[in-house]
Amino acid sequence: MEQTKFILNEQEMPTSWYNVQADLPEPLPPLRHPVTKEPTILPPPLFPASLNEQEHSKERYIEIPEEVQNIYRMWRPTILHRAHRLEKALDTPAKIFYKYEGTSPAGSHKLNTAVAQAYYGKQAGAKRLATETGAGQWGSALSMGCAFMGLECKVYMVKVSYYQKPYRRVLMETFGATVVPSPSTETEIGRRILAEDPESTGSLGIAISEAVEDAAGRDDTFYSLGSVLNHVLMHQTIIGQEAKKQMEKADAYPDIIVGCIGGGSNFAGMFLPFVPDKLKGQKVQIVCVEPEACPTVTKGPYAWDYGDVAGMAPIARMYTLGHAFVPPPVHAGGLRYHGMAPIVCHLVKLGLIEARAEHQVAVFKSAVDFARAEGIIPAPEPAHAIKVVIDEALKCKESGEKKTILLALSGHGHFDLAAYDEYLSGNLKDYEFPKEKMEAALAQLPEVPA
Amino acid sequence: MEQTKFILNEQEMPTSWYNVQADLPEPLPPLRHPVTKEPTILPPPLFPASLNEQEHSKERYIEIPEEVQNIYRMWRPTILHRAHRLEKALDTPAKIFYKYEGTSPAGSHKLNTAVAQAYYGKQAGAKRLATETGAGQWGSALSMGCAFMGLECKVYMVKVSYYQKPYRRVLMETFGATVVPSPSTETEIGRRILAEDPESTGSLGIAISEAVEDAAGRDDTFYSLGSVLNHVLMHQTIIGQEAKKQMEKADAYPDIIVGCIGGGSNFAGMFLPFVPDKLKGQKVQIVCVEPEACPTVTKGPYAWDYGDVAGMAPIARMYTLGHAFVPPPVHAGGLRYHGMAPIVCHLVKLGLIEARAEHQVAVFKSAVDFARAEGIIPAPEPAHAIKVVIDEALKCKESGEKKTILLALSGHGHFDLAAYDEYLSGNLKDYEFPKEKMEAALAQLPEVPA
Repeated sequence: MEQTKFILNEQEMPTSWYNVQADLPEPLPPLRHPVTKEPTILPPPLFPASLNEQEHSKERYIEIPEEVQNIYRMWRPTILHRAHRLEKALDTPAKIFYKYEGTSPAGSHKLNTAVAQAYYGKQAGAKRLATETGAGQWGSALSMGCAFMGLECKVYMVKVSYYQKPYRRVLMETFGATVVPSPSTETEIGRRILAEDPESTGSLGIAISEAVEDAAGRDDTFYSLGSVLNHVLMHQTIIGQEAKKQMEKADAYPDIIVGCIGGGSNFAGMFLPFVPDKLKGQKVQIVCVEPEACPTVTKGPYAWDYGDVAGMAPIARMYTLGHAFVPPPVHAGGLRYHGMAPIVCHLVKLGLIEARAEHQVAVFKSAVDFARAEGIIPAPEPAHAIKVVIDEALKCKESGEKKTILLALSGHGHFDLAAYDEYLSGNLKDYEFPKEKMEAALAQLPEVPA
Repeated sequence: MEQTKFILNEQEMPTSWYNVQADLPEPLPPLRHPVTKEPTILPPPLFPASLNEQEHSKERYIEIPEEVQNIYRMWRPTILHRAHRLEKALDTPAKIFYKYEGTSPAGSHKLNTAVAQAYYGKQAGAKRLATETGAGQWGSALSMGCAFMGLECKVYMVKVSYYQKPYRRVLMETFGATVVPSPSTETEIGRRILAEDPESTGSLGIAISEAVEDAAGRDDTFYSLGSVLNHVLMHQTIIGQEAKKQMEKADAYPDIIVGCIGGGSNFAGMFLPFVPDKLKGQKVQIVCVEPEACPTVTKGPYAWDYGDVAGMAPIARMYTLGHAFVPPPVHAGGLRYHGMAPIVCHLVKLGLIEARAEHQVAVFKSAVDFARAEGIIPAPEPAHAIKVVIDEALKCKESGEKKTILLALSGHGHFDLAAYDEYLSGNLKDYEFPKEKMEAALAQLPEVPA
């Protein structure tokens, strides 16, 4: 009998998050204030002090509060699977492992940070959190995090996804959240964008601006971000820490780690705990995958840019397509962001990780191949990573190499079946990268003094 | 730290199914031939001989083929959860455990028998399986089972569900199945029913007739049933066997076992392995729950009736509302069947288990309460069982009793969110049991000689 699943019991669940800032060869460039352009922390009215502390901490391990651990144990540790059936279907000598976060109540990794953020928000006296969501994964997660902690939750959902994925809205409402399509008429920035373009399908950048405006205007509300920020990536490191222990149980170590990037949190949660090994000389290739239609790291410059469309959020040093860039409506809503986590960008710049871009039709083909072999319908976002995993496994078939590949499978696609329907019926199309739109957006980058 | 999940590793997975026919105090009444009314086996052209053998076997344990075990290990053993958060929300001294089958690729317990049936079908030389599906759980499972075994799959899906749950269809198609709404124009019985009532929303009984007609007309096709039959219930006993081991790890034994019944397979899969204990004097209450709109066991007579609408399937001794009974379109499509598994009926008749009926609005309220506490959105079918679990836990609150309750949570409701939307927006309604329709249907019961 070949072992298929590598499990940890509750007692083996990591009890700290790993903070890569303790180990970076060069420190991260600090955030800049959106108005003064001076180095800054996260805006204190928007975030609890505890999360600001985590954002800038150099401590290697930060303990997970017991209440958060108890909620994690509802679904964690998650399973590490060996993809025996996919390997066989591809006829590859490669060993493929995948760490699947889709068994979380929210159906993705996002709940790892949602629970933590709801906890710290509540500790700091909040009654309510406001946030944005793309494909709906993050909004679902925060709705649950808030429900578990007894907080209210307001979600600004990117309009294209709001209508493409009605069941995501119902899911959030089932957990008591209030959901509106973004751009909405409930904020100044939303009204301004609708006035300029009543047909706007929205973007993560716009929705962020709306949620930030909401939280800034109320004393009882913190803003909550599902990706990008250092503390969010850190909350996800429980994934990679578990995966390391599980790979040990499988008597294996990855030659390649692959994950998709939208804001970067699932990918980072997986690979960050492997960074200390790599810095010590361990050979491990770390690959992130983004959509060709929104190719932030592969096509954007490494520059200073606002995290949001309105220029209310801090300025970060990152790969960016420009905060004014509105990506084509690919189905992977969670990957439609103009920027990228500063930590991911910094490590790309340092040469520790590499990036690739893929078109969605090929991505969905890989997703269906994966589903028929492994039984799991992946969300369109991690399907981008699956495309690269399959490419790498087929390269091994050519070369005869027996590489060990570790895939970060961030969540299921149960609410993305309209996209699968489009693919299966032959109606799905690729979008070329609108380079001229990026160039126009890059002309609006903020100028930041050295 | 209170333990939340009780897990088994792959090595601890049971390697045999449990066959309750070895332990029945009185044997099951044999099936009768639909035409001759004489005792009969399952129609040989429809079923492989191996499954017919299982259907009538008196062996206590039947080994699970290695190929089936290997596929089971993609998701089994499933987790036994302790519902700490629900207990707290209800403020009950009861201990609530639930065995969750929603982490299977198909999202429900149905895959346990789908994989086995595809295996035995292939062994017997089939190229193709035909089946019916209600809410889509069974069709999804058989599509996957066939995909894993390299067989084609044809699914007749009850029309009301086909349109209420389009994503279930896409899920099946993703796994390569062909899906048509039933009644369809592809079979004689489908055409006859459409001629009588072009607006027919279908029923499980009708869809069964279509699939049976399909398989009977082709040499390369077996018929596959997702519930009701003895061998199907037996394939599900892996659930209860795992649960027993897990309850031992939790140092607990159930005072009450609760499951929903449509055809009876999830419920039976859970409770059957506890029957030998009960026969030896162990005190354990076993409760099945059905919809008030289709109350087979609580309101129907124990009689001889056809398994399908057309009278082509064998006649079984069971509780029935009459094979011509078309139930109201409640959202729990999987519970809209006129009959019930003969094994379940036999054990009700012997006084070993009891039945209750619930209305859907109250059921959805319980489902939302459960979801907000435990993070899992249950399918409408097991939500019926959740209603009774919550009632029992609240009774314990009244009485101070510390009962241990074990819930069979058959699957998730990710494809049932339209129903949740209806409930949350206040538009969901209850359907009274159409007693006069049952009376008309009972007038058409077959006459069977003693």
